[in-house]
Amino acid sequence: MEREHVSHEDGVVYEFEPDLEAVTTVEPGAKLTIETKDSLNGTIRTEADVIESIPSQVNAATGPIAVEGADPGDVLRVEIEEIRLAEDQGRVVTIGGFGLLDGHEGIESPRTRLLAVEDDALAFGDLEVPVDPVIGTIGVATESDSYTTLVPHDHGGNLDTTDMTAGSVAYFPVFQEGAMLAMGDCKAAMADGEMCGTGAEIATEIDVTLEVVSDPEPGLERPLVETADAWKTIASAETLEEACELANRDALELLAAEHGWDSTDAYMLSSLVGGLEISQVVDPLVTARNAVPKAYLEDPF
Amino acid sequence: MEREHVSHEDGVVYEFEPDLEAVTTVEPGAKLTIETKDSLNGTIRTEADVIESIPSQVNAATGPIAVEGADPGDVLRVEIEEIRLAEDQGRVVTIGGFGLLDGHEGIESPRTRLLAVEDDALAFGDLEVPVDPVIGTIGVATESDSYTTLVPHDHGGNLDTTDMTAGSVAYFPVFQEGAMLAMGDCKAAMADGEMCGTGAEIATEIDVTLEVVSDPEPGLERPLVETADAWKTIASAETLEEACELANRDALELLAAEHGWDSTDAYMLSSLVGGLEISQVVDPLVTARNAVPKAYLEDPF
Repeated sequence: MEREHVSHEDGVVYEFEPDLEAVTTVEPGAKLTIETKDSLNGTIRTEADVIESIPSQVNAATGPIAVEGADPGDVLRVEIEEIRLAEDQGRVVTIGGFGLLDGHEGIESPRTRLLAVEDDALAFGDLEVPVDPVIGTIGVATESDSYTTLVPHDHGGNLDTTDMTAGSVAYFPVFQEGAMLAMGDCKAAMADGEMCGTGAEIATEIDVTLEVVSDPEPGLERPLVETADAWKTIASAETLEEACELANRDALELLAAEHGWDSTDAYMLSSLVGGLEISQVVDPLVTARNAVPKAYLEDPF
Repeated sequence: MEREHVSHEDGVVYEFEPDLEAVTTVEPGAKLTIETKDSLNGTIRTEADVIESIPSQVNAATGPIAVEGADPGDVLRVEIEEIRLAEDQGRVVTIGGFGLLDGHEGIESPRTRLLAVEDDALAFGDLEVPVDPVIGTIGVATESDSYTTLVPHDHGGNLDTTDMTAGSVAYFPVFQEGAMLAMGDCKAAMADGEMCGTGAEIATEIDVTLEVVSDPEPGLERPLVETADAWKTIASAETLEEACELANRDALELLAAEHGWDSTDAYMLSSLVGGLEISQVVDPLVTARNAVPKAYLEDPF
């Protein structure tokens, strides 16, 4: 089967909302290559290019892509097969009013550093940072509210989660017919937390395979990601504490369903293995996840 | 050199304060075995034993141990060589008013589960949880305020950090002459977050080697831990966001000092590699850390 290409030139969204119009419709099992712009829309080409304040449109998400047969209550399965860099430099920036240490002594904004890509590494002064691409923004049409591509929520969106990388499988609740998947905002490298507000922002080509999990039991309220070793629930909220509560509750639901436990026994196991992780602390809502090693959770669906 | 044994029968503290009286004084380079009680002082022997509310004294920390030549401004280096279980069962409990999901629907407290240890694993129903011991409470005499052993702060204390394990090296700022190290509250296994409020609480014997780093540059304001792969700053605060800010700032200081960078460049690198991690979200102050891979930070002192 030939791999269909979907480019940002076919369409992008800057807002995840209930009513989105698909740029293409594919069948379950479809293999796609999705071309994404960098989060700053190509505006940063030299270190003299700086971002004074967050632009009204960032994180262009290529799509949306409708998947036939994806109905509300289903789960969209996105296997991330490969992420290739589509340019030879990334950029990391500070932006006024943005970032974990914004306004702290010694932290300057705006500042831009270009990071040349050579031999699968980014040059940071004399240091080399291995290229390890991450999809920053990935999600589906929302249930009722709308969220710009700067915001993460139950539909996904700006999750800035390092596990959204090649080899992982992302799962999203389907809120609208066709699911309406869109993604962009990739980084050539990113730390858990994304403290300064960006990773190494870069254009990419992403190979994915899309499937629909019909009538999942239990259902999914928020994103989930499967890595080589773990299932990780992902939750976004006003505070990290609230995000941790949601991610932990979602993990308990999966554990309780698979093992026939009550919530309290699941809670106790969750306190012993895997654990809470930070995705990002810089977006309008922050994101945490709860990792459950596969030794304790075989298959949630 | 014979290894000196320090037992909880020699002395424990339930409060880290500026003025502590040493149970023993050792020279730099001393190799010790430290015997610790379980965090609940041996009160939980069967599943009928439950904890209605947090006792006034928990996390007995064996010590304090004075180290000769440790002066305020120095750093105490604690190499954690081995942690052996000293009993054949751990216990995980829920306690009213305590834990990430305390009061949530379906979460019962108090509840106790005993976890039998066999062949380096804990039995949790049909599942086996590998034994991977962690020191929950470890710290030194404080600068001015006092903190019970339920609370983590700049002196260490109830850090509940999974990296406090065999093979790691913990570093603490010395606030008082002799440093006055004490530790206890070990877990046979614990998840990042310690969501239900406990890991598998258990008595242990801990082998450590103690050293003093004199006149460190830069100095240390809060705990730091060296793992096989990373240096991790550790910070505790009222909220996870504040703890993340402190841990990130401490990491920037180490990066800037080693590389001669300004804070903003260090901030940018911190946003690309390693990242923020959650230690615990259940104690009166919560704890986060910022991991910097050793590829980018060779030796902070």
